[in-house]
Amino acid sequence: MEYYESEAQYLKDLDKRSGLPEGFLVSTAFVNFIPGEKPVVEKLSMNLTLIKLKEPSECFGAVYTKNAFPGAPVILGRKRLNNKFIRGILINNRIANVSARNGEEDAERILKELAELLGGSSQDYIPASTGIIGWKLPVEEIVKALPGLAVNLRGGSVLSAAKAIMTTDSFPKVRQEKVGDGTVVGIAKGAGMIEPNMGTMLAFILTDLYLDREEMRKILKKSVNRTFNRISIDGDQSTSDTAVIVSSGKKKTADFSEVERAVEEVCRKLAEDIVRNGEGVGHVMEVAVKRAPSEEVAVNIGKAVINSPLVKTAVFGNDPNVGRLLSSVGDYCGTNVPELSLRNLRINLGGIEVFSDRFFRLDTEKERRLADYLKNCGFNPALHGYPVHDKKVEIVIDLGEGTENAKVLGSDLSYQYVKENADYRS
Amino acid sequence: MEYYESEAQYLKDLDKRSGLPEGFLVSTAFVNFIPGEKPVVEKLSMNLTLIKLKEPSECFGAVYTKNAFPGAPVILGRKRLNNKFIRGILINNRIANVSARNGEEDAERILKELAELLGGSSQDYIPASTGIIGWKLPVEEIVKALPGLAVNLRGGSVLSAAKAIMTTDSFPKVRQEKVGDGTVVGIAKGAGMIEPNMGTMLAFILTDLYLDREEMRKILKKSVNRTFNRISIDGDQSTSDTAVIVSSGKKKTADFSEVERAVEEVCRKLAEDIVRNGEGVGHVMEVAVKRAPSEEVAVNIGKAVINSPLVKTAVFGNDPNVGRLLSSVGDYCGTNVPELSLRNLRINLGGIEVFSDRFFRLDTEKERRLADYLKNCGFNPALHGYPVHDKKVEIVIDLGEGTENAKVLGSDLSYQYVKENADYRS
Repeated sequence: MEYYESEAQYLKDLDKRSGLPEGFLVSTAFVNFIPGEKPVVEKLSMNLTLIKLKEPSECFGAVYTKNAFPGAPVILGRKRLNNKFIRGILINNRIANVSARNGEEDAERILKELAELLGGSSQDYIPASTGIIGWKLPVEEIVKALPGLAVNLRGGSVLSAAKAIMTTDSFPKVRQEKVGDGTVVGIAKGAGMIEPNMGTMLAFILTDLYLDREEMRKILKKSVNRTFNRISIDGDQSTSDTAVIVSSGKKKTADFSEVERAVEEVCRKLAEDIVRNGEGVGHVMEVAVKRAPSEEVAVNIGKAVINSPLVKTAVFGNDPNVGRLLSSVGDYCGTNVPELSLRNLRINLGGIEVFSDRFFRLDTEKERRLADYLKNCGFNPALHGYPVHDKKVEIVIDLGEGTENAKVLGSDLSYQYVKENADYRS
Repeated sequence: MEYYESEAQYLKDLDKRSGLPEGFLVSTAFVNFIPGEKPVVEKLSMNLTLIKLKEPSECFGAVYTKNAFPGAPVILGRKRLNNKFIRGILINNRIANVSARNGEEDAERILKELAELLGGSSQDYIPASTGIIGWKLPVEEIVKALPGLAVNLRGGSVLSAAKAIMTTDSFPKVRQEKVGDGTVVGIAKGAGMIEPNMGTMLAFILTDLYLDREEMRKILKKSVNRTFNRISIDGDQSTSDTAVIVSSGKKKTADFSEVERAVEEVCRKLAEDIVRNGEGVGHVMEVAVKRAPSEEVAVNIGKAVINSPLVKTAVFGNDPNVGRLLSSVGDYCGTNVPELSLRNLRINLGGIEVFSDRFFRLDTEKERRLADYLKNCGFNPALHGYPVHDKKVEIVIDLGEGTENAKVLGSDLSYQYVKENADYRS
């Protein structure tokens, strides 16, 4: 990633990579409504985003949250995976439409109205919602905004959609890869309740490269598993995690593996963007677990470290409290893989060895270097609008007990995180 | 618990329940030292606490952390469980003596010097340490302070020990139960890195009631499992969790089950004290999981809710964002017990039903009552010295799918928590 000094500079860069693949149009609209649950009578705003295929496509797929209380759009979207084709995706932010009475009927009603404007039936459109759990969608207000949405459909750029799907995200996220004369472009939304299991909060991958449905779904599943499923902001898997992929099939695919690589790359970069945009993130952390007996153990140890509130707060405070790294590895291993030998464990922070041969390797000089390293990797979590730089706090946990490796990405825990989440609905 | 308006009032109450059982003496001392690892040359202070039996006792037991990197005192303490008797316990705060080079030798050296002053061998004394992980104990400074510690041994009250074992604890914790003419008294230390597995950071239960060694160990294990193992501040199981029980055997035990009840009650109240004293705690939360298919599922769902950063921050902000309660239940169940039906799930917050028959039951009036309820349960997390009141945020998760129940206790996530843990070592 480049270094950005202003939001304008960042948006200029995004603009370059926001080109829509052939065969797609997008549109956004703005809705004001008074929620029926909020104790203070106050208007809230909601964005609608429509991604429309010029022609119906059979080539689409999605992976969804494993949360036992999926939102209504997740329930409906799962069913639509069996349909012959889709014509588009309708997304709203602000209210996630989860376990609200008549949530499924509400979503279907809206899609039915949309289909009357754009053709086909409600079945041809995939719904996606993000935001507050438990409240109802303002159905009438959304229906009223649909004609405007239909009229404004445009090709060219996906950037307006990337902006409109945000909730507490501080910057829009777009990533693009070229394969031959085709394009894979992805947008994502997500800043909190992030430990995806199947996809992040919302991600949409669009391409004009032809892939048959089964190939496409296999690629998406594999890519999601290696990218979105390896990040965590707060360990909370949401009710709405959704990653959708759609191809317009307009371009011939010369090299299947190149498309596979491009999709994974777009997912990886979006996943990194999501972490860098986590609520109140002051440091991005990358934990590389090496020489583990299995990939599962590697991922789980990485997650244990990256999700430890004590590791996260220490990094936020630029305090190289490496005892907490060891403690979180030991906590996970002692409880879950007590048979695993940890005699060969080495821990490095920012390339500096802090633990090896069963003991800490610390002195005043090293403590000073470690603190400087953390300071240098940080940025101001209150800053909004654009990611400043792409530095990461690099933690290496080398188990020396196998051949499997995994990297997980996460963030520190700041005042700003507490602030944003303490009054999320206000 | 009573309501306290000042630290003096609280200490007066503690004093009443701090009477040492027969056969015990305690002593504390203060040590200044310059750590060999801290980048800034600066004196730190450490407290030493000695709990001494007047006569060696065969009746003792302990449960320790399952962390794969236990501290040196845990390693040595575990071995001493096979010894014929003990003469005392030596505790230090500030440095946990975990994975520091020569940590075991250092602890043994200190106990050897202690034994020369007090009789017996180093094997007759159990060590316990709490504080920073990875740094070395200041052995020479501790050894110099031991004669003072030996000279000051006194009976009467355990309160000085309860104060001396604290680190970031904001108030001392003592609980007592009477059984016949005997006493069970416990002290505990713990405010962060709290999701005990075998005991909290440090807890010491002393009694004059005779129990044979095996009975005593059985009681401790069961009590710890039902009390300390059902609390969580931040989900981090420390390297030093220790609960020790010792009897002087001076009083006859008329009713074994009464002693069992008393030990569990002391552990339960200390566990509650620890949560109420959690770092930066503004609300104590109690999650009661009812009608679960197994006790394990009940405990795990409770822990999932109580450890969700999003639930914790919402409660801190007095925001009844009950969608997050559902999401954390669904996150745990979807991933771990996907076969469990949740059709009968009911969720109550402060006695107010928010979810039943598969949907949220929310309106503006209810949202207002819920917000008022949360406000009323809170206190100022920056307040130090004493617990103000014993209110809890009561969350009921009724699964309606079985007969097993469990309660877990935890806390919100505040700015103060982040602050204390961002500069813990400064």
